Amino acid sequence: MKKSVGAKTLLFPTPVLMVGTYDQAGKPNLMNAAWGGICCSQPPCVAVSLRKATYSHACIIERQAFTVGIACEDRMVEADYVGIASGRDLDKFAVTGLTPVKSDLVDAPYAAEFPVVLECRLLQVIEIGLHTQFIGEIMDVKGDADVFAEDGNLDIMKIRPLIYDTAHKGYHGVGPLLGKAFSVGKGMQP
Amino acid sequence: MKKSVGAKTLLFPTPVLMVGTYDQAGKPNLMNAAWGGICCSQPPCVAVSLRKATYSHACIIERQAFTVGIACEDRMVEADYVGIASGRDLDKFAVTGLTPVKSDLVDAPYAAEFPVVLECRLLQVIEIGLHTQFIGEIMDVKGDADVFAEDGNLDIMKIRPLIYDTAHKGYHGVGPLLGKAFSVGKGMQP
Repeated sequence: MKKSVGAKTLLFPTPVLMVGTYDQAGKPNLMNAAWGGICCSQPPCVAVSLRKATYSHACIIERQAFTVGIACEDRMVEADYVGIASGRDLDKFAVTGLTPVKSDLVDAPYAAEFPVVLECRLLQVIEIGLHTQFIGEIMDVKGDADVFAEDGNLDIMKIRPLIYDTAHKGYHGVGPLLGKAFSVGKGMQP
Repeated sequence: MKKSVGAKTLLFPTPVLMVGTYDQAGKPNLMNAAWGGICCSQPPCVAVSLRKATYSHACIIERQAFTVGIACEDRMVEADYVGIASGRDLDKFAVTGLTPVKSDLVDAPYAAEFPVVLECRLLQVIEIGLHTQFIGEIMDVKGDADVFAEDGNLDIMKIRPLIYDTAHKGYHGVGPLLGKAFSVGKGMQP
């Protein structure tokens, strides 16, 4: 018998996404979003949901583009800070010392210090309620040389992405491999 | 200098979501979806993206409802199996031995054995490409008695949710708490 907790945004896990944008004046900005995820394989798309009150909201519409960096354990402090401050008041790149890099594919910047970045062009804008969902087509994914596995694919244990625990507002890391997908369940086939 | 990996659905982490539905005949079904996440705080909403070819796709539209169970380490085998088989061919609850429970709020079932479930009514259907995104309003979240912390909130370390590594198709667990959100970054404030 399960116990009710009410109508709340409780999903486990949620990611820690570094959403990069330029404002009208060309100032780069970065915010922290846990409301997001992959939403289509073909075309490859990622969705991030932002409140209209955020500085990044207007920037995405203005520039029709954004980037999604993967926050990692080594940069937890910076990742948290960009979720506290607003780009309306200051330049978060200057404050944190993070390095803004202009995407060569879309009109948005990313922070060099986060190990993986998705460069996205705005595909759809979905009004839901307090949050607007931005669906971005992933034009490219780029990773630092030291987060690739020997097989040439990105290695989650080298990326060390942060996980956001929405129930207790905490950051966690990723544990070791437990099993292979599309494999460990095969034994159940009748 | 980052290295390009191409336009791929590489986000870290992604969740392992157990999407529960009834078909036209009332047979309960469960599928495994990693393309999803919270997409709005008010009303509280969760999005899951499914290919049109899946059996669950038509079920969600038919019943205007679905549930989202959180796959956990103890049930990795069952979680993987429901991502391999199709409800078109067989009854996955019968095969796995999972117990279907009818939601008391929406027209969809969930598996009793997964520790947390979100009960959702269909709010929006977004066609993106290969995937259709279903936005569900979370009507309630329910958790097993043994996955709550002493403060009455759900405890991620007791839930032990699975993480899907999309690069190497593997399941991982959640590591320990690394820091508090809206807190560890405060020291960066100028």
